[in-house]
Amino acid sequence: MNIAIIGYGNLGRGVEASLTQNHDMKAVGIFTRRAPETVKPATNVPVYSLDEIDAHADEIDVAILCGGSATDLPEMTPALAERFNVVDSFDTHARIPEHFAAVDAAAKRGGHTALISGGWDPGLFSLARLYASSVLPNGSDCTFWGRGVSQGHSDAIRRIPGVADARQYTVPIPEAMEAARRGEAGDLTARQKHLRECYVVAEEGADLAKIEQAIKTMPNYFADYDTSVTFITKEELKKKHARLPHGGTVIRTGTTGLTGENRQTIEFTLTLDSNPEFTSGVLVALARAVGKMHARGDIGCKTVFDVAPADLSALSPEELRAHLL
Amino acid sequence: MNIAIIGYGNLGRGVEASLTQNHDMKAVGIFTRRAPETVKPATNVPVYSLDEIDAHADEIDVAILCGGSATDLPEMTPALAERFNVVDSFDTHARIPEHFAAVDAAAKRGGHTALISGGWDPGLFSLARLYASSVLPNGSDCTFWGRGVSQGHSDAIRRIPGVADARQYTVPIPEAMEAARRGEAGDLTARQKHLRECYVVAEEGADLAKIEQAIKTMPNYFADYDTSVTFITKEELKKKHARLPHGGTVIRTGTTGLTGENRQTIEFTLTLDSNPEFTSGVLVALARAVGKMHARGDIGCKTVFDVAPADLSALSPEELRAHLL
Repeated sequence: MNIAIIGYGNLGRGVEASLTQNHDMKAVGIFTRRAPETVKPATNVPVYSLDEIDAHADEIDVAILCGGSATDLPEMTPALAERFNVVDSFDTHARIPEHFAAVDAAAKRGGHTALISGGWDPGLFSLARLYASSVLPNGSDCTFWGRGVSQGHSDAIRRIPGVADARQYTVPIPEAMEAARRGEAGDLTARQKHLRECYVVAEEGADLAKIEQAIKTMPNYFADYDTSVTFITKEELKKKHARLPHGGTVIRTGTTGLTGENRQTIEFTLTLDSNPEFTSGVLVALARAVGKMHARGDIGCKTVFDVAPADLSALSPEELRAHLL
Repeated sequence: MNIAIIGYGNLGRGVEASLTQNHDMKAVGIFTRRAPETVKPATNVPVYSLDEIDAHADEIDVAILCGGSATDLPEMTPALAERFNVVDSFDTHARIPEHFAAVDAAAKRGGHTALISGGWDPGLFSLARLYASSVLPNGSDCTFWGRGVSQGHSDAIRRIPGVADARQYTVPIPEAMEAARRGEAGDLTARQKHLRECYVVAEEGADLAKIEQAIKTMPNYFADYDTSVTFITKEELKKKHARLPHGGTVIRTGTTGLTGENRQTIEFTLTLDSNPEFTSGVLVALARAVGKMHARGDIGCKTVFDVAPADLSALSPEELRAHLL
């Protein structure tokens, strides 16, 4: 299966690396909006201008879109879905229905298969929520994120005047996770579920107290959480906080039996050294499924909820039944 | 959706209870090989002889088979799959390919949809293995069971002369789980992964040392494990070991990046007060999916690997995308 990588940031590099581990798939090109000669791939994948992609249509089975959800994907996924099978990682939860509708219309016009919102949340965590709620209808679930770097929150700190760089870790609170395992997390506030740890490099002469205050009172991002702010040097940030670890846990607890006398708990946990590389691995497996679904004539927009698990694997149905079931 | 419950042991009772929590589904009958008047359901579901099931074909959308894998299901699932949509929990891993072939042929002859090997292992744990290996191809996984009651091992102890009753708990070894999280569980032996704890009620005057020896040296079941044997009274067994808790964890650790420099771990954990009631909940969700697949004309034998997750849920695709994705 021939894969086009659209965009070459952290996610595009992760897809490139992931494709070297999946021997039934191959990267046929990186397509960029930058000048192609300025992009230096880590492997020997050719780089083209995104404007030229139509000329490569015959070589591409599935295109993996590695842009951002804020501005890139709402435009690019519908535009490309009309001409290619596509996978994206659109993660603005509130706007998923509208993105789905736009991509579905485009994919159907072109007779293509598209999958949106792949990755781990949305993605594998969504699947954990769906499986768990389907088998334990009488229960409640709770999603915890971290310990890991939130790029959105790190960016929000960087926009504060006087901040040179920053890293924000989202940290789940163990007592809240225990409450979720007991099925008692329903009323927990945002503050009770997660802490926010901020490591900030200030510009020379900046007012540190003012920066700390600006972070801790920032609406939506920090005001509703217990937030710690630690000022560190640029060197320390580079040394201790260069990676992008993340992860989290989906916990659903329900009761079964005629009087609800038995408690049952399902937990799905990710512990990731590299958030973008793991997300890329999910997108590549989904691209395999999209290729198979398109070959069967299953067109239009899909999500992880619509993908039969067997389609994600390079193994045959017989091998899967014999070895993984 | 109208559900027939075939067999009324622990699993049949669990399905009956689970159906009271799933408001889009209804139990239309318990079908038994015993004399129907000797079966007393916990709810007001009518009880019929299994011999009469064909007379109820029009009322049944999906039949859930609640028999055992050793002798019941290899006969019953193919026989019923020709006339009904069915779900079973066949769990003899080594014989799955042959059971699949028999059920597939029968279901296709009758134009029905069948799902075999539902439950949690095989079932949800199989799904965890498949999703995890698909997104982390460069890695290894390890499945741990327990702490929980193994009914097969408990039965094996009960067959020893001088044993009145017994309960065997399978217990995962924490150090082995830590090794799996580091991706180093590949070479662990059975003994390094699980302990076996046995609680045994001896008959009056039985030779306890001989029973203990018989347990600890029993091939396949105990000889390859560190096994503890504790003799207790009938009353203590009833008081402390009456429930059927179980659970376990599937752990897959893999590496990503061009030089495998980042470690990524996926864990799926179940903590169950009642093994049969939880298994029943999975079977009921799978029955919903089988009903939907049959309505779409998707006939033949399936496993959890073939079921699009959305089909398990009572929610519409739009609701799923808006609330669970």
